[in-house]
Amino acid sequence: MIRAGVVGASGLAGGDLIRLITQHPDMELTFLGGSSNIGRRPAELHPNLRLDLGLTVQPVTEEIADQVDVVFLATPAPVSAELAALLADRVPAVVDLSGAFRIRTPELHDRWYPKVKRRTDLADRFVYGVPELVGDQLTDAALISLPGCYATAITLGLAPLTLGLGLDLKTVVVDGKSGSSGGGLQLRTPDLHPFRSGAIAPYSPTGHRHAAEVGDFLERGKPGTIGSLTMSAYGVSHVRGLLTSSYVFTDDAVDQRELQRAYVRFYKGHRFVRVRRHAETLIPVPDPQAVLGSNYCDVTVLHDEDGDRIVVLAALDNLVKGAAGQAVQAANIRFGLPEETGLTMQPVMPA
Amino acid sequence: MIRAGVVGASGLAGGDLIRLITQHPDMELTFLGGSSNIGRRPAELHPNLRLDLGLTVQPVTEEIADQVDVVFLATPAPVSAELAALLADRVPAVVDLSGAFRIRTPELHDRWYPKVKRRTDLADRFVYGVPELVGDQLTDAALISLPGCYATAITLGLAPLTLGLGLDLKTVVVDGKSGSSGGGLQLRTPDLHPFRSGAIAPYSPTGHRHAAEVGDFLERGKPGTIGSLTMSAYGVSHVRGLLTSSYVFTDDAVDQRELQRAYVRFYKGHRFVRVRRHAETLIPVPDPQAVLGSNYCDVTVLHDEDGDRIVVLAALDNLVKGAAGQAVQAANIRFGLPEETGLTMQPVMPA
Amino acid sequence: MIRAGVVGASGLAGGDLIRLITQHPDMELTFLGGSSNIGRRPAELHPNLRLDLGLTVQPVTEEIADQVDVVFLATPAPVSAELAALLADRVPAVVDLSGAFRIRTPELHDRWYPKVKRRTDLADRFVYGVPELVGDQLTDAALISLPGCYATAITLGLAPLTLGLGLDLKTVVVDGKSGSSGGGLQLRTPDLHPFRSGAIAPYSPTGHRHAAEVGDFLERGKPGTIGSLTMSAYGVSHVRGLLTSSYVFTDDAVDQRELQRAYVRFYKGHRFVRVRRHAETLIPVPDPQAVLGSNYCDVTVLHDEDGDRIVVLAALDNLVKGAAGQAVQAANIRFGLPEETGLTMQPVMPA
Amino acid sequence: MIRAGVVGASGLAGGDLIRLITQHPDMELTFLGGSSNIGRRPAELHPNLRLDLGLTVQPVTEEIADQVDVVFLATPAPVSAELAALLADRVPAVVDLSGAFRIRTPELHDRWYPKVKRRTDLADRFVYGVPELVGDQLTDAALISLPGCYATAITLGLAPLTLGLGLDLKTVVVDGKSGSSGGGLQLRTPDLHPFRSGAIAPYSPTGHRHAAEVGDFLERGKPGTIGSLTMSAYGVSHVRGLLTSSYVFTDDAVDQRELQRAYVRFYKGHRFVRVRRHAETLIPVPDPQAVLGSNYCDVTVLHDEDGDRIVVLAALDNLVKGAAGQAVQAANIRFGLPEETGLTMQPVMPA
Repeated sequence: MIRAGVVGASGLAGGDLIRLITQHPDMELTFLGGSSNIGRRPAELHPNLRLDLGLTVQPVTEEIADQVDVVFLATPAPVSAELAALLADRVPAVVDLSGAFRIRTPELHDRWYPKVKRRTDLADRFVYGVPELVGDQLTDAALISLPGCYATAITLGLAPLTLGLGLDLKTVVVDGKSGSSGGGLQLRTPDLHPFRSGAIAPYSPTGHRHAAEVGDFLERGKPGTIGSLTMSAYGVSHVRGLLTSSYVFTDDAVDQRELQRAYVRFYKGHRFVRVRRHAETLIPVPDPQAVLGSNYCDVTVLHDEDGDRIVVLAALDNLVKGAAGQAVQAANIRFGLPEETGLTMQPVMPA
Repeated sequence: MIRAGVVGASGLAGGDLIRLITQHPDMELTFLGGSSNIGRRPAELHPNLRLDLGLTVQPVTEEIADQVDVVFLATPAPVSAELAALLADRVPAVVDLSGAFRIRTPELHDRWYPKVKRRTDLADRFVYGVPELVGDQLTDAALISLPGCYATAITLGLAPLTLGLGLDLKTVVVDGKSGSSGGGLQLRTPDLHPFRSGAIAPYSPTGHRHAAEVGDFLERGKPGTIGSLTMSAYGVSHVRGLLTSSYVFTDDAVDQRELQRAYVRFYKGHRFVRVRRHAETLIPVPDPQAVLGSNYCDVTVLHDEDGDRIVVLAALDNLVKGAAGQAVQAANIRFGLPEETGLTMQPVMPA
Repeated sequence: MIRAGVVGASGLAGGDLIRLITQHPDMELTFLGGSSNIGRRPAELHPNLRLDLGLTVQPVTEEIADQVDVVFLATPAPVSAELAALLADRVPAVVDLSGAFRIRTPELHDRWYPKVKRRTDLADRFVYGVPELVGDQLTDAALISLPGCYATAITLGLAPLTLGLGLDLKTVVVDGKSGSSGGGLQLRTPDLHPFRSGAIAPYSPTGHRHAAEVGDFLERGKPGTIGSLTMSAYGVSHVRGLLTSSYVFTDDAVDQRELQRAYVRFYKGHRFVRVRRHAETLIPVPDPQAVLGSNYCDVTVLHDEDGDRIVVLAALDNLVKGAAGQAVQAANIRFGLPEETGLTMQPVMPA
Repeated sequence: MIRAGVVGASGLAGGDLIRLITQHPDMELTFLGGSSNIGRRPAELHPNLRLDLGLTVQPVTEEIADQVDVVFLATPAPVSAELAALLADRVPAVVDLSGAFRIRTPELHDRWYPKVKRRTDLADRFVYGVPELVGDQLTDAALISLPGCYATAITLGLAPLTLGLGLDLKTVVVDGKSGSSGGGLQLRTPDLHPFRSGAIAPYSPTGHRHAAEVGDFLERGKPGTIGSLTMSAYGVSHVRGLLTSSYVFTDDAVDQRELQRAYVRFYKGHRFVRVRRHAETLIPVPDPQAVLGSNYCDVTVLHDEDGDRIVVLAALDNLVKGAAGQAVQAANIRFGLPEETGLTMQPVMPA
């Protein structure tokens, strides 16, 4: 039984970590950490959860090292930077869900996370990446940094083009659409229900830091593969789930059939990525409603003859495959379990 | 391994049955039946589901008796009446989710289900009821009829008053509020998204047949316990989950403390019913969002000093505890498994 | 041209007052008051509004008396109590949308508004009521207090029974369902989009102060008409609009035909109250989506033979007929204009 | 008083035409046409509308020429093609809201509207375009074809770049996001509330015919201005309003300040286009919720330094500025009225 601690237990990703770990056959929740809500039971903060977990939220100290085999940090990036320094080398595995350790290049990190001071020696030890793409590196990793929710979808969507087909992507235009849970639980006026319901909110029309993360990762070992990758992000009127649209222009010739085959081949054996044809179900896919509550990422690739471009769509549950589920998946690999352990729940639909 | 068949595989309850059975450790999906979508794979109809089930929708004939230990009928009441006659005595267990066999009194049945012709001898053999209240009767039952989604919530909310405290309920006014999945997938204009989104639709302001079902059940063996039970039902602007408000007037004296204790005591040992205080979490409960995707029914009881009345609130996921989950729960009991087998998934929230 | 000031300009009711006054042919917006957002233009606070109003939010002082003929107080009750004392006898008309002066009986006021200290002499001078029911009293009224959004719907729904048919209502059970705009713009966790979307939130299951207001009003001059009136209120998953269900038990005999006639007769000549049959349109009515953005209140009355009860449904836009629109309507009457002046916009549907 | 007829009175655009015309000071509704719902009153079909219009839906024949000065065709494109042939030269003005006469080039028309057979001589007589851009041509026009809802937003967003600044747009990637009312009231499973609520539905990921319309229009007189214009369209989880994101790559140098100035200058005097800075209000704009129910189109232009691209966002109410409102605006110009006559209602927000 792997003993797991969750820090940031009051937040949305923290709540989903508790939900998943308490359903996990080989993982046991032994610590709940946070800086607010000290002493509260999880069911007070997350009305969905079981009432009888027997844990309350506690401050994080060095002492927790005795209680856990893995700590999940579902904390803001500055907090994660501090906690990682505290816990590294004290607990067998630290899995960070924040952006603190995602970007390795110091200059790039400082541009996108100017307020997150981290130790570079520590940063260099973190394994970063979507488990489907860096699985081997996670085995026995002591420090793991997970991609953001958007970055996970974009990367899973583009990887078969760059890493699979070896295409050079001249221009990639990413348009991301997310439900309101993607922004966490901040008490800000635009996040109140009257303003977010019915909205198409262009909250990040230029310069999204997840774009930097994606480019950084996909060009590893092969700089220059991507000419330009820009991103805009929008908040839409539901709660859970996101869709990324990547509009790709390349000088390399490729048709629909090759694309479809390449994607199916690339994700063969990876049960959490479902390569789907756009019209294969009674609703068009991918659509995040079809992955709600699950660790799936649905991906569809289309060759658009009109503009001679490739359209890649990827949908996932931002709190599961985009956060808590992916974290558990990485921890599974880290501890030698099958990656799907505790993550076989099917999506809840319609919801 | 219990071999299970699902008839009505294209519908919403059918979809959730498939979802639950394919996650069930001791149940195996061996047949999918229906009258439409013959030959289609479940993932075409339910975009959330796993792609590789190896089954397609087939017509129901006597021959399916060889393939199944239990058949779940997620079919309209008239179809259930026919299929029950076909399958009774041929398969070990038939679990009907429709209204065909809910009301035992023939006159009452004919009033509320005038178009559902059923054989009275067959009807008399059905065990009807919420598993928490009729568990013993389900053991080895060959024919099982499950309460409607509203009826489940109302009955679980009122049973501690009548069956537990033995109160006489002079007047019960029930106000039911449901998401759009409660109405199934009918192609009707009021169910189109533009009209249902943002609505508070008084679709059944007087004379709801679930009220008949509840009264019929709660007064078994003790007629006259309930003076008057009326119900009105409303469609509100979300998809999954319902809340029933029962406003109870009684001449018997009882206070908040006694009520709370009585409810906790009544449901002790029943893990799917969570008795909750109204303000115990950061959002007021019960709220169906806190049970989404799970088999929980959350119940809260309040004594309202102003009107000297009791307010009973009950929330559940109409497709799980109100349909597919409750059906699996009943089948578990029927086949001697712990009732929670395959039903331990925690609610997905927020969603 | 009536010169109008709006205090509480940053709030939702304030925003709708600005919207309506700037469309009003005989009213001119000359002052915007508030305690926060001083110096801001309305379009910064209300992104829907015209950009060129030429006013910014200012603190309220005695000096505004020179600038306005009427002041609308869309402020919290304690603020309204203070501002009314400041402005009474200085400006020709003060219209208060808060609860500060709704309940005349001091004991009752103190019970439901314990934090609102008001001068009793001032309180006694306020005319309170739905314009349709107290129109004459509004002519030349210097101080006007408007019912709450729920109270408006309930009162308009019940008045034809008590004031029209003269029935004694033994028991009235009110179930109110409201969108999220009813709660204003408070930065509270349950009001964040992830928790309010998809909710059926029992936020006030017992003891709603609007119930006191309604009973107080309907029994004026005829105490004892209503035996018991209790209310529960729920937040549902849309933004604008509410529906009240009043379940009425009476010993007086009355049938569907009489009820329908009585309601039509009672509201003859009152264009803002539409008496509608439940099934007269392609969606069941009343439904607040059919009055969105307008000053209509749709009312339906049904005799439920099963429980020998009367079901009264009333739907309105809580920010218009429940707040800003009703305020303009009252001011129209006060200044001798036709009550519908500036309020003839039709509902926006679907939305 | 201009006598107006609306054909397609049962549909969503038809409903909004009735709403707007009955509020119009110089227009009078004198005919309601359709092929279904013959004999029904508008309030039965559109529960929001006034009850007393005194008209019912009637079949369209030549005889209506005596009753109307202008006919609005809110009909499917094939029906519009037929009715235009019937009514041209019989009524003073025909305003078509469908796609039947939008694309002038026959080959292009046949590609995107293969089922719409129209007379070329008639097609050549139609004036097509957004009123802000073709106003002069509308004066005394007998036949008017209005852009689609998406096309209106995209064109208003891009025109200041091409027609104003004279830029050559090398690559334009359009991502359109729309509420469910954009698809009309078709009884199709994906449009049922359970599937559309919570969706991000990639219903048209490649090859949207509105893209053809936009390119065709913007290059009039200056072919080759636009290198490539591609479009993808998504259905999101609200009802009314759309946002188009146009990602523009150009070799011409231009910075944020020039762009902002150019847009403000271009739309000076056009009250329905509001050029807004992204962060000028408490929610990011443009957002369709801020134009709901109104004839506004909000436009924001941003220079994205990272990718050296221009991001143009445009939001409108698809049933008003994208359909009924724009139709009334065009008719106003046609008949010599100020374009805003009857269209000065402010947006309803929040809703």
